[in-house]
Amino acid sequence: MEKLPKSTAKLIKSLQIKKYRASEQSFLVQGAKSFNELIRSNFQIQRVVATPSFYETIPNDLLQTKGISFYYANERELEAVGSFKSNESVIAVVQMPNATQNPEIGPNELAIVLDDIRDPGNLGTIIRTADWFGIKNIIASPTTADFYNPKVINSTMGSFTRVNVFYTELYEFCAKYKGSIFVSDMIGTNIRNLATPKSGLLVMGNESQGVAPFWEKLKVEKVSIPGGTGTESLNVAVACGILLERLTA
Amino acid sequence: MEKLPKSTAKLIKSLQIKKYRASEQSFLVQGAKSFNELIRSNFQIQRVVATPSFYETIPNDLLQTKGISFYYANERELEAVGSFKSNESVIAVVQMPNATQNPEIGPNELAIVLDDIRDPGNLGTIIRTADWFGIKNIIASPTTADFYNPKVINSTMGSFTRVNVFYTELYEFCAKYKGSIFVSDMIGTNIRNLATPKSGLLVMGNESQGVAPFWEKLKVEKVSIPGGTGTESLNVAVACGILLERLTA
Repeated sequence: MEKLPKSTAKLIKSLQIKKYRASEQSFLVQGAKSFNELIRSNFQIQRVVATPSFYETIPNDLLQTKGISFYYANERELEAVGSFKSNESVIAVVQMPNATQNPEIGPNELAIVLDDIRDPGNLGTIIRTADWFGIKNIIASPTTADFYNPKVINSTMGSFTRVNVFYTELYEFCAKYKGSIFVSDMIGTNIRNLATPKSGLLVMGNESQGVAPFWEKLKVEKVSIPGGTGTESLNVAVACGILLERLTA
Repeated sequence: MEKLPKSTAKLIKSLQIKKYRASEQSFLVQGAKSFNELIRSNFQIQRVVATPSFYETIPNDLLQTKGISFYYANERELEAVGSFKSNESVIAVVQMPNATQNPEIGPNELAIVLDDIRDPGNLGTIIRTADWFGIKNIIASPTTADFYNPKVINSTMGSFTRVNVFYTELYEFCAKYKGSIFVSDMIGTNIRNLATPKSGLLVMGNESQGVAPFWEKLKVEKVSIPGGTGTESLNVAVACGILLERLTA
Protein backbone atom coordinates (compact mmCIF):
# COMPACT_ATOMS: atom_id res chain seq x y z
CA MET A 1 0.00 0.00 0.00
CA GLU A 2 1.15 3.46 -0.93
CA LYS A 3 2.00 6.40 1.27
CA LEU A 4 -0.51 9.27 1.03
CA PRO A 5 0.13 10.93 -2.37
CA LYS A 6 0.27 14.71 -2.63
CA SER A 7 -2.78 14.76 -4.91
CA THR A 8 -4.92 13.04 -2.28
CA ALA A 9 -3.56 15.25 0.51
CA LYS A 10 -4.54 18.26 -1.59
CA LEU A 11 -7.99 16.81 -2.30
CA ILE A 12 -8.65 16.19 1.39
CA LYS A 13 -7.62 19.72 2.33
CA SER A 14 -9.90 21.13 -0.37
CA LEU A 15 -12.92 19.13 0.85
CA GLN A 16 -13.02 21.18 4.03
CA ILE A 17 -14.44 23.96 1.85
CA LYS A 18 -18.03 23.80 0.58
CA LYS A 19 -17.20 25.00 -2.94
CA TYR A 20 -14.80 22.11 -3.49
CA ARG A 21 -17.17 19.58 -1.94
CA ALA A 22 -19.75 20.72 -4.50
CA SER A 23 -17.41 20.50 -7.47
CA GLU A 24 -15.95 17.11 -6.41
CA GLN A 25 -19.32 15.81 -5.15
CA SER A 26 -17.36 14.29 -2.27
CA PHE A 27 -16.99 14.85 1.47
CA LEU A 28 -14.79 13.76 4.39
CA VAL A 29 -15.46 11.29 7.16
CA GLN A 30 -12.81 11.51 9.88
CA GLY A 31 -12.01 9.44 12.95
CA ALA A 32 -12.67 5.84 13.97
CA LYS A 33 -16.21 6.29 15.35
CA SER A 34 -17.62 7.89 12.18
CA PHE A 35 -15.62 5.60 9.89
CA ASN A 36 -17.00 2.50 11.59
CA GLU A 37 -20.55 3.72 11.00
CA LEU A 38 -19.66 4.70 7.42
CA ILE A 39 -18.53 1.19 6.44
CA ARG A 40 -21.85 -0.23 7.66
CA SER A 41 -23.79 2.24 5.47
CA ASN A 42 -24.55 2.51 1.75
CA PHE A 43 -22.29 5.49 1.18
CA GLN A 44 -19.70 4.96 -1.58
CA ILE A 45 -16.18 5.28 -0.21
CA GLN A 46 -13.61 6.53 -2.73
CA ARG A 47 -10.33 6.79 -0.83
CA VAL A 48 -9.19 5.87 2.67
CA VAL A 49 -6.11 7.26 4.41
CA ALA A 50 -5.30 5.38 7.61
CA THR A 51 -2.52 4.96 10.14
CA PRO A 52 -0.91 1.49 9.92
CA SER A 53 -2.50 0.46 13.24
CA PHE A 54 -5.97 1.59 12.20
CA TYR A 55 -5.55 -0.06 8.80
CA GLU A 56 -5.27 -3.42 10.58
CA THR A 57 -8.78 -2.94 11.99
CA ILE A 58 -10.46 -2.32 8.61
CA PRO A 59 -12.67 -5.29 7.68
CA ASN A 60 -11.35 -7.46 4.85
CA ASP A 61 -14.44 -7.15 2.69
CA LEU A 62 -13.98 -3.38 2.59
CA LEU A 63 -10.30 -3.76 1.66
CA GLN A 64 -11.37 -5.92 -1.28
CA THR A 65 -14.10 -3.57 -2.50
CA LYS A 66 -13.23 -2.43 -6.01
CA GLY A 67 -12.65 1.24 -6.65
CA ILE A 68 -11.45 2.20 -3.16
CA SER A 69 -7.86 3.42 -2.90
CA PHE A 70 -6.10 2.87 0.44
CA TYR A 71 -3.15 4.92 1.62
CA TYR A 72 -0.95 5.00 4.70
CA ALA A 73 -0.27 8.15 6.71
CA ASN A 74 0.99 8.89 10.19
CA GLU A 75 -0.98 10.87 12.77
CA ARG A 76 0.83 14.09 11.99
CA GLU A 77 -0.07 13.79 8.32
CA LEU A 78 -3.73 13.05 9.10
CA GLU A 79 -3.86 16.11 11.33
CA ALA A 80 -2.14 18.25 8.67
CA VAL A 81 -4.58 17.41 5.88
CA GLY A 82 -7.81 16.88 7.85
CA SER A 83 -9.77 19.12 10.19
CA PHE A 84 -9.30 17.18 13.45
CA LYS A 85 -6.77 18.61 15.90
CA SER A 86 -5.99 15.06 16.86
CA ASN A 87 -6.52 12.07 14.55
CA GLU A 88 -4.77 8.79 15.18
CA SER A 89 -6.95 6.71 12.90
CA VAL A 90 -8.45 7.56 9.55
CA ILE A 91 -9.84 9.97 6.95
CA ALA A 92 -12.17 8.74 4.20
CA VAL A 93 -13.20 10.55 1.02
CA VAL A 94 -16.82 9.66 0.33
CA GLN A 95 -19.08 10.24 -2.64
CA MET A 96 -22.14 12.41 -2.05
CA PRO A 97 -25.31 10.48 -2.85
CA ASN A 98 -27.26 11.87 -5.82
CA ALA A 99 -29.37 14.81 -4.80
CA THR A 100 -32.81 13.38 -4.14
CA GLN A 101 -36.22 14.93 -4.53
CA ASN A 102 -37.83 16.33 -1.43
CA PRO A 103 -39.03 13.45 0.64
CA GLU A 104 -42.64 12.46 0.89
CA ILE A 105 -43.36 12.78 4.60
CA GLY A 106 -45.75 9.95 5.44
CA PRO A 107 -49.01 10.65 7.30
CA ASN A 108 -47.70 8.92 10.45
CA GLU A 109 -44.20 10.34 10.21
CA LEU A 110 -42.59 12.94 12.45
CA ALA A 111 -39.99 15.03 10.61
CA ILE A 112 -37.89 18.07 11.55
CA VAL A 113 -37.76 21.39 9.69
CA LEU A 114 -34.71 23.59 10.30
CA ASP A 115 -35.17 27.29 9.56
CA ASP A 116 -31.70 28.81 9.28
CA ILE A 117 -29.64 26.78 11.78
CA ARG A 118 -26.21 28.30 11.24
CA ASP A 119 -23.90 26.49 13.64
CA PRO A 120 -22.49 23.20 12.25
CA GLY A 121 -22.23 21.73 15.76
CA ASN A 122 -25.90 22.46 16.39
CA LEU A 123 -26.92 20.88 13.07
CA GLY A 124 -24.84 17.78 13.78
CA THR A 125 -26.26 17.44 17.29
CA ILE A 126 -29.83 17.81 15.96
CA ILE A 127 -29.17 15.04 13.41
CA ARG A 128 -27.80 12.83 16.21
CA THR A 129 -30.84 13.56 18.39
CA ALA A 130 -33.25 12.93 15.51
CA ASP A 131 -31.63 9.52 14.97
CA TRP A 132 -32.11 8.65 18.66
CA PHE A 133 -35.85 9.33 18.32
CA GLY A 134 -36.17 7.35 15.08
CA ILE A 135 -36.59 10.36 12.79
CA LYS A 136 -35.46 9.73 9.23
CA ASN A 137 -36.00 13.06 7.46
CA ILE A 138 -34.93 16.65 8.11
CA ILE A 139 -35.95 19.49 5.80
CA ALA A 140 -33.59 22.47 6.02
CA SER A 141 -33.66 26.01 4.65
CA PRO A 142 -30.91 26.74 2.09
CA THR A 143 -29.31 29.03 4.74
CA THR A 144 -28.87 26.15 7.21
CA ALA A 145 -25.32 24.84 7.72
CA ASP A 146 -24.06 22.34 5.12
CA PHE A 147 -24.72 18.69 6.00
CA TYR A 148 -21.32 17.73 4.52
CA ASN A 149 -19.34 20.26 6.60
CA PRO A 150 -16.76 18.15 8.52
CA LYS A 151 -17.97 19.67 11.83
CA VAL A 152 -21.53 18.57 11.07
CA ILE A 153 -20.49 15.04 10.08
CA ASN A 154 -18.33 14.78 13.19
CA SER A 155 -20.92 15.98 15.67
CA THR A 156 -23.56 13.58 14.32
CA MET A 157 -21.45 10.76 15.89
CA GLY A 158 -22.28 8.48 12.98
CA SER A 159 -25.95 9.45 12.63
CA PHE A 160 -25.20 11.11 9.26
CA THR A 161 -25.50 7.59 7.80
CA ARG A 162 -29.09 7.15 9.00
CA VAL A 163 -30.80 10.56 8.76
CA ASN A 164 -31.51 12.40 5.46
CA VAL A 165 -31.24 16.17 5.24
CA PHE A 166 -33.00 17.91 2.32
CA TYR A 167 -32.37 21.57 1.51
CA THR A 168 -35.32 23.44 0.09
CA GLU A 169 -37.41 26.60 0.38
CA LEU A 170 -39.38 25.99 3.55
CA TYR A 171 -42.43 28.09 2.78
CA GLU A 172 -43.26 26.19 -0.39
CA PHE A 173 -42.57 22.85 1.21
CA CYS A 174 -44.66 23.51 4.30
CA ALA A 175 -47.53 25.18 2.46
CA LYS A 176 -48.08 21.88 0.60
CA TYR A 177 -47.82 19.74 3.74
CA LYS A 178 -51.16 18.38 5.01
CA GLY A 179 -50.32 17.36 8.61
CA SER A 180 -49.68 19.33 11.81
CA ILE A 181 -46.84 21.84 11.92
CA PHE A 182 -45.37 22.55 15.36
CA VAL A 183 -43.15 25.63 15.61
CA SER A 184 -40.79 25.94 18.57
CA ASP A 185 -41.15 29.41 20.05
CA MET A 186 -40.75 31.26 23.36
CA ILE A 187 -44.52 31.66 23.61
CA GLY A 188 -46.81 28.84 22.59
CA THR A 189 -48.69 25.80 23.84
CA ASN A 190 -46.85 24.30 26.80
CA ILE A 191 -45.29 21.13 25.37
CA ARG A 192 -46.43 19.28 28.50
CA ASN A 193 -50.06 20.05 27.66
CA LEU A 194 -49.91 19.04 24.02
CA ALA A 195 -51.63 15.78 23.08
CA THR A 196 -48.73 13.85 21.57
CA PRO A 197 -49.46 13.38 17.89
CA LYS A 198 -46.31 11.37 17.02
CA SER A 199 -46.55 12.78 13.51
CA GLY A 200 -46.15 16.14 11.83
CA LEU A 201 -43.33 18.62 11.32
CA LEU A 202 -41.33 20.12 14.18
CA VAL A 203 -39.86 23.49 13.13
CA MET A 204 -36.75 24.81 14.90
CA GLY A 205 -35.66 28.40 14.18
CA ASN A 206 -32.39 30.30 13.97
CA GLU A 207 -30.10 30.40 17.04
CA SER A 208 -30.55 34.11 17.67
CA GLN A 209 -33.56 35.19 15.62
CA GLY A 210 -35.92 32.25 16.14
CA VAL A 211 -38.28 31.39 13.30
CA ALA A 212 -38.81 33.74 10.37
CA PRO A 213 -41.93 35.90 10.04
CA PHE A 214 -43.29 33.86 7.13
CA TRP A 215 -44.36 31.18 9.61
CA GLU A 216 -47.15 33.56 10.64
CA LYS A 217 -48.71 33.01 7.22
CA LEU A 218 -48.97 29.25 7.67
CA LYS A 219 -51.39 27.30 9.84
CA VAL A 220 -49.07 26.15 12.61
CA GLU A 221 -49.18 25.43 16.32
CA LYS A 222 -46.54 27.22 18.35
CA VAL A 223 -45.10 25.10 21.14
CA SER A 224 -42.90 26.15 24.03
CA ILE A 225 -40.82 24.55 26.77
CA PRO A 226 -41.67 25.66 30.33
CA GLY A 227 -38.89 27.49 32.18
CA GLY A 228 -36.91 30.65 31.59
CA THR A 229 -38.22 33.98 32.79
CA GLY A 230 -36.62 36.38 30.36
CA THR A 231 -32.87 36.34 29.92
CA GLU A 232 -32.45 32.56 30.01
CA SER A 233 -32.49 30.61 26.77
CA LEU A 234 -31.98 27.07 25.55
CA ASN A 235 -29.48 25.87 22.98
CA VAL A 236 -31.42 24.94 19.82
CA ALA A 237 -30.26 21.30 19.85
CA VAL A 238 -31.22 20.93 23.52
CA ALA A 239 -34.65 22.47 22.82
CA CYS A 240 -35.09 20.15 19.83
CA GLY A 241 -34.28 17.13 22.02
CA ILE A 242 -36.78 18.15 24.70
CA LEU A 243 -39.54 18.73 22.13
CA LEU A 244 -38.84 15.46 20.30
CA GLU A 245 -38.95 13.51 23.55
CA ARG A 246 -42.40 14.96 24.29
CA LEU A 247 -43.70 14.64 20.71
CA THR A 248 -42.76 10.95 20.53
CA ALA A 249 -44.03 10.02 24.00
CA MET B 1 -9.30 56.73 28.12
CA GLU B 2 -6.14 54.85 27.29
CA LYS B 3 -5.40 52.49 24.44
CA LEU B 4 -5.01 48.84 25.53
CA PRO B 5 -1.61 48.65 27.31
CA LYS B 6 0.75 45.77 26.58
CA SER B 7 0.52 44.54 30.16
CA THR B 8 -3.26 44.12 29.91
CA ALA B 9 -2.99 42.50 26.48
CA LYS B 10 -0.54 40.01 27.99
CA LEU B 11 -2.79 39.39 31.00
CA ILE B 12 -5.80 38.68 28.77
CA LYS B 13 -3.83 36.24 26.64
CA SER B 14 -2.60 34.44 29.75
CA LEU B 15 -6.14 34.06 31.17
CA GLN B 16 -7.02 31.65 28.39
CA ILE B 17 -4.86 29.14 30.30
CA LYS B 18 -6.13 27.55 33.50
CA LYS B 19 -2.82 27.85 35.36
CA TYR B 20 -2.79 31.63 34.93
CA ARG B 21 -6.48 31.96 35.81
CA ALA B 22 -5.65 30.18 39.07
CA SER B 23 -2.65 32.36 39.89
CA GLU B 24 -4.41 35.61 38.94
CA GLN B 25 -7.76 34.50 40.40
CA SER B 26 -9.35 36.14 37.34
CA PHE B 27 -11.15 35.05 34.20
CA LEU B 28 -12.37 36.49 30.88
CA VAL B 29 -15.85 37.48 29.78
CA GLN B 30 -15.95 38.15 26.04
CA GLY B 31 -18.60 39.54 23.72
CA ALA B 32 -21.61 41.81 24.17
CA LYS B 33 -24.15 39.15 25.22
CA SER B 34 -22.04 37.82 28.11
CA PHE B 35 -20.83 41.30 29.12
CA ASN B 36 -24.38 42.58 29.38
CA GLU B 37 -25.26 39.75 31.76
CA LEU B 38 -22.00 40.31 33.67
CA ILE B 39 -22.75 43.94 34.48
CA ARG B 40 -26.13 42.91 35.95
CA SER B 41 -24.42 40.37 38.26
CA ASN B 42 -22.37 40.57 41.46
CA PHE B 43 -19.10 39.60 39.79
CA GLN B 44 -16.28 42.10 40.39
CA ILE B 45 -15.04 43.51 37.10
CA GLN B 46 -11.36 44.54 37.11
CA ARG B 47 -10.60 45.75 33.58
CA VAL B 48 -12.67 46.32 30.46
CA VAL B 49 -11.29 46.54 26.92
CA ALA B 50 -13.90 47.77 24.44
CA THR B 51 -14.18 49.08 20.92
CA PRO B 52 -15.13 52.78 20.85
CA SER B 53 -18.64 51.98 19.58
CA PHE B 54 -19.24 49.35 22.27
CA TYR B 55 -17.83 51.68 24.94
CA GLU B 56 -20.67 54.11 24.18
CA THR B 57 -23.19 51.44 25.22
CA ILE B 58 -21.66 50.76 28.65
CA PRO B 59 -23.95 52.12 31.39
CA ASN B 60 -22.71 55.22 33.18
CA ASP B 61 -22.87 53.73 36.66
CA LEU B 62 -20.45 51.01 35.59
CA LEU B 63 -18.09 53.61 34.09
CA GLN B 64 -18.05 55.37 37.44
CA THR B 65 -17.45 52.24 39.54
CA LYS B 66 -14.15 52.61 41.39
CA GLY B 67 -11.37 50.17 40.64
CA ILE B 68 -12.35 49.30 37.07
CA SER B 69 -9.86 50.27 34.36
CA PHE B 70 -11.28 50.95 30.90
CA TYR B 71 -9.26 50.70 27.70
CA TYR B 72 -9.93 51.16 24.00
CA ALA B 73 -9.03 48.59 21.38
CA ASN B 74 -10.10 47.91 17.82
CA GLU B 75 -11.66 44.64 16.66
CA ARG B 76 -8.37 43.27 15.39
CA GLU B 77 -6.76 43.84 18.78
CA LEU B 78 -9.66 42.19 20.63
CA GLU B 79 -9.40 39.18 18.35
CA ALA B 80 -5.61 39.04 18.80
CA VAL B 81 -5.66 38.98 22.60
CA GLY B 82 -8.96 37.13 23.25
CA SER B 83 -10.21 33.72 22.21
CA PHE B 84 -13.05 34.79 19.90
CA LYS B 85 -12.42 34.50 16.18
CA SER B 86 -14.57 37.57 15.75
CA ASN B 87 -15.11 40.16 18.50
CA GLU B 88 -16.40 43.62 17.67
CA SER B 89 -17.33 44.57 21.20
CA VAL B 90 -15.58 43.82 24.46
CA ILE B 91 -13.38 41.71 26.74
CA ALA B 92 -13.63 42.01 30.53
CA VAL B 93 -11.21 40.71 33.15
CA VAL B 94 -13.26 39.55 36.11
CA GLN B 95 -12.32 38.50 39.63
CA MET B 96 -13.14 34.92 40.59
CA PRO B 97 -15.45 34.86 43.60
CA ASN B 98 -13.90 33.34 46.72
CA ALA B 99 -14.03 29.56 46.62
CA THR B 100 -17.09 28.62 48.61
CA GLN B 101 -17.84 25.55 50.67
CA ASN B 102 -19.84 22.84 49.02
CA PRO B 103 -23.42 23.99 48.87
CA GLU B 104 -26.10 22.68 51.15
CA ILE B 105 -28.63 21.18 48.75
CA GLY B 106 -32.05 21.91 50.28
CA PRO B 107 -34.60 19.11 50.73
CA ASN B 108 -36.81 20.52 47.94
CA GLU B 109 -33.95 21.39 45.63
CA LEU B 110 -33.02 19.72 42.35
CA ALA B 111 -29.28 19.93 41.64
CA ILE B 112 -27.01 18.48 38.94
CA VAL B 113 -23.92 16.32 39.49
CA LEU B 114 -21.40 16.14 36.65
CA ASP B 115 -19.12 13.11 36.65
CA ASP B 116 -16.20 13.91 34.35
CA ILE B 117 -17.77 16.11 31.65
CA ARG B 118 -14.69 16.95 29.59
CA ASP B 119 -15.95 19.14 26.76
CA PRO B 120 -16.16 22.87 27.65
CA GLY B 121 -19.03 23.39 25.20
CA ASN B 122 -21.02 20.61 26.85
CA LEU B 123 -20.39 22.05 30.32
CA GLY B 124 -21.44 25.52 29.20
CA THR B 125 -24.59 24.20 27.53
CA ILE B 126 -25.49 22.21 30.65
CA ILE B 127 -25.11 25.36 32.79
CA ARG B 128 -27.33 27.26 30.34
CA THR B 129 -29.95 24.48 30.42
CA ALA B 130 -29.83 24.28 34.24
CA ASP B 131 -30.50 28.02 34.39
CA TRP B 132 -33.56 27.62 32.13
CA PHE B 133 -35.03 25.06 34.56
CA GLY B 134 -34.28 27.18 37.63
CA ILE B 135 -31.40 25.06 38.93
CA LYS B 136 -28.91 26.99 41.05
CA ASN B 137 -26.24 24.44 41.95
CA ILE B 138 -24.05 22.05 39.99
CA ILE B 139 -21.57 19.73 41.72
CA ALA B 140 -18.76 18.63 39.41
CA SER B 141 -15.95 16.09 39.67
CA PRO B 142 -12.44 17.62 39.70
CA THR B 143 -11.94 16.10 36.22
CA THR B 144 -14.84 18.08 34.75
CA ALA B 145 -13.96 21.01 32.45
CA ASP B 146 -13.07 24.29 34.18
CA PHE B 147 -16.02 26.64 34.74
CA TYR B 148 -13.78 29.65 33.95
CA ASN B 149 -12.57 28.27 30.60
CA PRO B 150 -13.56 30.95 28.01
CA LYS B 151 -15.40 28.31 25.94
CA VAL B 152 -17.49 27.37 28.97
CA ILE B 153 -18.30 30.98 29.87
CA ASN B 154 -19.20 31.68 26.24
CA SER B 155 -21.49 28.71 25.74
CA THR B 156 -23.43 29.47 28.94
CA MET B 157 -24.83 32.52 27.08
CA GLY B 158 -24.76 34.55 30.30
CA SER B 159 -26.00 31.81 32.63
CA PHE B 160 -22.56 31.66 34.31
CA THR B 161 -23.80 34.63 36.37
CA ARG B 162 -26.74 32.69 37.82
CA VAL B 163 -25.62 29.07 38.31
CA ASN B 164 -22.93 27.95 40.80
CA VAL B 165 -20.51 25.15 39.96
CA PHE B 166 -18.68 23.44 42.84
CA TYR B 167 -15.78 21.06 42.23
CA THR B 168 -15.46 18.23 44.71
CA GLU B 169 -15.01 14.48 45.08
CA LEU B 170 -18.40 13.14 44.07
CA TYR B 171 -18.39 9.93 46.07
CA GLU B 172 -17.95 11.71 49.39
CA PHE B 173 -20.45 14.38 48.52
CA CYS B 174 -23.14 11.98 47.35
CA ALA B 175 -22.62 9.46 50.16
CA LYS B 176 -23.61 12.20 52.63
CA TYR B 177 -26.62 13.33 50.60
CA LYS B 178 -30.00 12.25 52.04
CA GLY B 179 -32.35 12.73 49.05
CA SER B 180 -32.89 10.80 45.81
CA ILE B 181 -30.01 10.38 43.39
CA PHE B 182 -30.95 9.85 39.73
CA VAL B 183 -28.19 8.58 37.48
CA SER B 184 -28.56 8.99 33.70
CA ASP B 185 -27.72 5.68 32.05
CA MET B 186 -28.52 3.70 28.89
CA ILE B 187 -30.49 1.21 30.96
CA GLY B 188 -32.71 2.39 33.80
CA THR B 189 -36.21 3.48 34.72
CA ASN B 190 -37.90 5.04 31.68
CA ILE B 191 -37.93 8.76 32.50
CA ARG B 192 -41.55 8.90 31.29
CA ASN B 193 -42.58 6.43 34.01
CA LEU B 194 -40.79 8.16 36.89
CA ALA B 195 -42.96 10.00 39.38
CA THR B 196 -41.54 13.52 39.13
CA PRO B 197 -39.88 14.29 42.44
CA LYS B 198 -38.75 17.86 41.59
CA SER B 199 -35.92 17.39 44.07
CA GLY B 200 -32.76 15.31 44.32
CA LEU B 201 -29.53 15.04 42.39
CA LEU B 202 -29.39 14.32 38.65
CA VAL B 203 -26.04 12.69 37.75
CA MET B 204 -24.70 12.98 34.19
CA GLY B 205 -21.63 10.91 33.26
CA ASN B 206 -18.66 11.27 30.95
CA GLU B 207 -19.26 11.78 27.21
CA SER B 208 -17.81 8.41 26.17
CA GLN B 209 -17.56 6.33 29.34
CA GLY B 210 -20.84 7.23 31.08
CA VAL B 211 -20.84 7.26 34.86
CA ALA B 212 -17.98 5.75 36.85
CA PRO B 213 -18.27 2.33 38.56
CA PHE B 214 -18.34 3.86 42.05
CA TRP B 215 -21.98 4.81 41.46
CA GLU B 216 -22.80 1.12 41.89
CA LYS B 217 -21.83 1.47 45.56
CA LEU B 218 -24.37 4.23 46.23
CA LYS B 219 -28.12 3.92 46.55
CA VAL B 220 -29.24 5.52 43.29
CA GLU B 221 -32.02 5.19 40.73
CA LYS B 222 -30.81 4.79 37.16
CA VAL B 223 -32.97 6.66 34.66
CA SER B 224 -32.99 6.40 30.88
CA ILE B 225 -34.45 8.22 27.89
CA PRO B 226 -36.51 6.07 25.50
CA GLY B 227 -35.13 5.74 21.98
CA GLY B 228 -31.89 4.48 20.47
CA THR B 229 -31.49 0.82 19.65
CA GLY B 230 -27.76 0.36 19.93
CA THR B 231 -25.46 2.58 17.92
CA GLU B 232 -27.41 5.81 18.44
CA SER B 233 -26.51 8.08 21.33
CA LEU B 234 -27.46 11.46 22.73
CA ASN B 235 -25.16 14.41 23.37
CA VAL B 236 -24.78 14.76 27.15
CA ALA B 237 -26.20 18.31 27.23
CA VAL B 238 -29.23 17.24 25.17
CA ALA B 239 -29.78 14.25 27.48
CA CYS B 240 -29.47 16.51 30.52
CA GLY B 241 -32.09 18.88 29.06
CA ILE B 242 -34.55 16.06 28.38
CA LEU B 243 -34.12 14.64 31.88
CA LEU B 244 -34.45 18.06 33.55
CA GLU B 245 -37.63 18.81 31.63
CA ARG B 246 -39.15 15.56 32.91
CA LEU B 247 -37.81 15.88 36.46
CA THR B 248 -39.25 19.39 36.84
CA ALA B 249 -42.63 18.62 35.24
